[in-house]
Amino acid sequence: MHSHVSLLTDYGLHDEFVGVMKCVITDLAPHARITDITHGIPAFDVRAGSLALARAIQYVPPGIVIAVVDPGVGSNRRAIAIEVAGGRGVLIGPDNGLLASAAAMAGGAERVFELSNTDLHIDAPGTTFAGRDIFAPVAAHLCNGGAIEDVGPEIDSATVMPGLVPIPTVEKHGVYGEGLRCEVTWVDGYGNCQLNVGPDEIAQFGNTVRLVMGDDVRSARIASHFAEIDGGAIGAVVDSYGMVALAVDRGSAAETLRLSAGDAVLVFIGSGDGQTSAVSIRSAK
Amino acid sequence: MHSHVSLLTDYGLHDEFVGVMKCVITDLAPHARITDITHGIPAFDVRAGSLALARAIQYVPPGIVIAVVDPGVGSNRRAIAIEVAGGRGVLIGPDNGLLASAAAMAGGAERVFELSNTDLHIDAPGTTFAGRDIFAPVAAHLCNGGAIEDVGPEIDSATVMPGLVPIPTVEKHGVYGEGLRCEVTWVDGYGNCQLNVGPDEIAQFGNTVRLVMGDDVRSARIASHFAEIDGGAIGAVVDSYGMVALAVDRGSAAETLRLSAGDAVLVFIGSGDGQTSAVSIRSAK
Amino acid sequence: MHSHVSLLTDYGLHDEFVGVMKCVITDLAPHARITDITHGIPAFDVRAGSLALARAIQYVPPGIVIAVVDPGVGSNRRAIAIEVAGGRGVLIGPDNGLLASAAAMAGGAERVFELSNTDLHIDAPGTTFAGRDIFAPVAAHLCNGGAIEDVGPEIDSATVMPGLVPIPTVEKHGVYGEGLRCEVTWVDGYGNCQLNVGPDEIAQFGNTVRLVMGDDVRSARIASHFAEIDGGAIGAVVDSYGMVALAVDRGSAAETLRLSAGDAVLVFIGSGDGQTSAVSIRSAK
Repeated sequence: MHSHVSLLTDYGLHDEFVGVMKCVITDLAPHARITDITHGIPAFDVRAGSLALARAIQYVPPGIVIAVVDPGVGSNRRAIAIEVAGGRGVLIGPDNGLLASAAAMAGGAERVFELSNTDLHIDAPGTTFAGRDIFAPVAAHLCNGGAIEDVGPEIDSATVMPGLVPIPTVEKHGVYGEGLRCEVTWVDGYGNCQLNVGPDEIAQFGNTVRLVMGDDVRSARIASHFAEIDGGAIGAVVDSYGMVALAVDRGSAAETLRLSAGDAVLVFIGSGDGQTSAVSIRSAK
Repeated sequence: MHSHVSLLTDYGLHDEFVGVMKCVITDLAPHARITDITHGIPAFDVRAGSLALARAIQYVPPGIVIAVVDPGVGSNRRAIAIEVAGGRGVLIGPDNGLLASAAAMAGGAERVFELSNTDLHIDAPGTTFAGRDIFAPVAAHLCNGGAIEDVGPEIDSATVMPGLVPIPTVEKHGVYGEGLRCEVTWVDGYGNCQLNVGPDEIAQFGNTVRLVMGDDVRSARIASHFAEIDGGAIGAVVDSYGMVALAVDRGSAAETLRLSAGDAVLVFIGSGDGQTSAVSIRSAK
Repeated sequence: MHSHVSLLTDYGLHDEFVGVMKCVITDLAPHARITDITHGIPAFDVRAGSLALARAIQYVPPGIVIAVVDPGVGSNRRAIAIEVAGGRGVLIGPDNGLLASAAAMAGGAERVFELSNTDLHIDAPGTTFAGRDIFAPVAAHLCNGGAIEDVGPEIDSATVMPGLVPIPTVEKHGVYGEGLRCEVTWVDGYGNCQLNVGPDEIAQFGNTVRLVMGDDVRSARIASHFAEIDGGAIGAVVDSYGMVALAVDRGSAAETLRLSAGDAVLVFIGSGDGQTSAVSIRSAK
């Protein structure tokens, strides 16, 4: 019997999708408490949803998590429930790579079930709203003390689609020597650009790093918080999840650096002499 | 005594309007549980709000619904409460066409009251925030077991402003013959374009339909879910409310077809030979 | 022991920041009820957050308020808790001017504490997410009956950073005579432009006022609600907080007048002859 349902989707808040999903849960399991993790995942972006869920999961209370970023809804992609932490948590959603990283962060998938028992689902004319018709009523079933075995047959956890976590790689550059090829994993609402690299990996580079993004070369100073970054300068801050994020003080690093999620950033040992040096290096190419 | 209040407004989430309305309900009726259906109705768009509420209402738990899309707030438009389903539901909002379709979907307006008992309202300097000053405290009154007769005099349900539900019409076209003149009733956040036509009405047209939107002529294939639509092609999918929606796989049909809510779409028996045929037909005009 | 936590931030709803903060509160204090005042404060805009909180506070139920607009997060700006109303309310957030006006509206800061007891905080790799790591667990502590004295040492309430409330000033103008220099304090989602002036101050100007905004001169009629404003005309309406707001019927005054929060608007005794007169006056300059 679970009392908490947390939600993460790409439904957005302009339509009634999220509201209707909550109505279904509340109607079927009135005692369940619902928390929105976010509904702002970019449409169809399974990777962004997977990363956001993996970041958040350590803070989510015990109970059910429904995650929906599901471009294949209604097709033959499976709908699944992943049991974690001795049954204290259950992740529900499409089997498309969205859930696996969060399950791993929560200690690993212990049992996995396919949500094929349509007796628990809501009859609907179309097949495009699994959040309302499948995931919500299955979550309510579990909140009401229903057995997880009821949701459908157990399946091999090794068949669950893995999440893709990008790993930084060491790269030799003609001008700047050996560096790290990183990737922007997340641009938050402030424009901070999280990289797939932790502070330990970057500590070897000193207090200043050189960033190469396509034709653009910049210096960034390692900073412990945003306000420590000089006005207009680029900082590399350890963010709230322990990853390195590129940031500017009271501004958007994503706009300044024209970066989006998925973009490559090469990190090299910095000269410490900032923008000017970067320009001269650029013209030397 | 009601325990649930559901909210649908055009307030958006940038301002504190929704939050303050919830604070008032929570302060006056601490046991009431509040669910946001949506606050993303386009500003002043009573028709869009009416359609969203009519779509959602079948999933809303028993209790109070407050709906606010209210360009006439503070004027002599009436504020009303519509009792439905033997008193298990009460719809509260302005009498401007917003509530009627949902009331009909919930079994029909049984009793209607005008919210003219100002003793239940919150004194406020201006008249522009009925959600906070009238609808929220009246909902709290009902949640606290107050009689619906207290909210003001019963009025004739026949005087409630009806919602406007657009009906498709049969139309003869010089080139394509007899077809259906449909209307886009809703563009959701993914860009899917719901039409005011069900799958049965469109089944007669075969597996492919021809769409005429102003000068633009396209073919659309009937598809059972989004992923079944070929890359870049247009599909006609039965959506989660049982209506036909124009869609593209992992993209926005509204952008591809330059459609907005309220636009006309003419549907004809399709040739089945797609885009090329459409182009040749267009040049034959 | 508090049972209610209200939230106001500039986190937005695209990321999981708000959701994670709620997860922390819910995990630590499962009985606490959470209400979102708004998360739509413009990024880093302490003044906008301060004004929104001051507007909302009179409607917020007793309990904890967490407010976060915090460009200095992780720096040496203090994190504080302000006790108001004999302990029935506690405002938690950064000491940067965000909380002071709301505290004054709630009767004044009675005791203030610095949140320096890190035993109550959540260990985290970075210092950039005080909402999750400091404010949320401190709120949960208070909801669980923990003493406010536990959060850190009491500090002098006179040292709390004040909020800046702009005051209108009387100004002489070469053409229009004596008028009021006002400021746009808030542009809401509909485009209504709240000024820092109440209806009494403006009543002396008659039924029509002249507005001077840079080179643009307009007439505005005093109206009691939006629908009373003629199509396309500008109205001055007493808004729901008792301030004068510039508005147009079913449209955006901010777009029509090209106004943003912080802009100056000079208000003079109006001629009552509207747009035409304004143009002739403009050419007479």
